[in-house]
Amino acid sequence: MVKLIARVIVTPKPVVNDPQGNTVKAGLHRLGFAEVADVRIGKYIELQLEADDEVGARRRVAEMCQKLLANHVIEDVRFLLDEAETKVTSG
Amino acid sequence: MVKLIARVIVTPKPVVNDPQGNTVKAGLHRLGFAEVADVRIGKYIELQLEADDEVGARRRVAEMCQKLLANHVIEDVRFLLDEAETKVTSG
Repeated sequence: MVKLIARVIVTPKPVVNDPQGNTVKAGLHRLGFAEVADVRIGKYIELQLEADDEVGARRRVAEMCQKLLANHVIEDVRFLLDEAETKVTSG
Repeated sequence: MVKLIARVIVTPKPVVNDPQGNTVKAGLHRLGFAEVADVRIGKYIELQLEADDEVGARRRVAEMCQKLLANHVIEDVRFLLDEAETKVTSG
C-alpha cells in the first residue's frame, strides 16, 4: 500500500457565469488592482488516501470526481496525484 | 506588458476545523471510497492580469492575497504565476 495525496481542482466551465468571481474582481478593482482582467473561482480539494498503486488510485479518484466531487454539467475537474510525505524519525 | 494567469490556492490552516471536508469525507465513505483518510477543502482562484514583468506581478498578487483573497488568521495561501496562452491566428 502507498499513501497518496490527490489535489483536485474544480472550476466552473468557461460558459458558466461565476458571480463569486465577478464579486471578487469588483473588490480587487475597488482596492486599486485595476490590472485584474478576470477572476474565476473554483474549489480545491485535497484527499489523503491509500492505494495499491498509483494507476489504481488514479482510477478511484476519477470515480470520486464523477460521483461526488464535481457537477459535470457546469464544472470542469482535474487532479494531480502525489506521494504523501513520509515522516522520518531519526535517532 | 505581459498577460499572466495567477492560480491562487487558499486552504484552511492544518489546526483549523474543516467541516466541509469532513462532510465530503463522510460522503465518500458512504459511496464506498473507504480508502480516503482525510479531506481538506479550500478555494481555487484564477486571476487574469496584466503586468510590466513577472516580478512586479508576483508582488501585486501577494498583496491581493494579503488584502482580500485569504484570511491569514485561519487560511494558508500560495500561488503560481503563468504566462497566459496567446492565441495565434494563422493564415
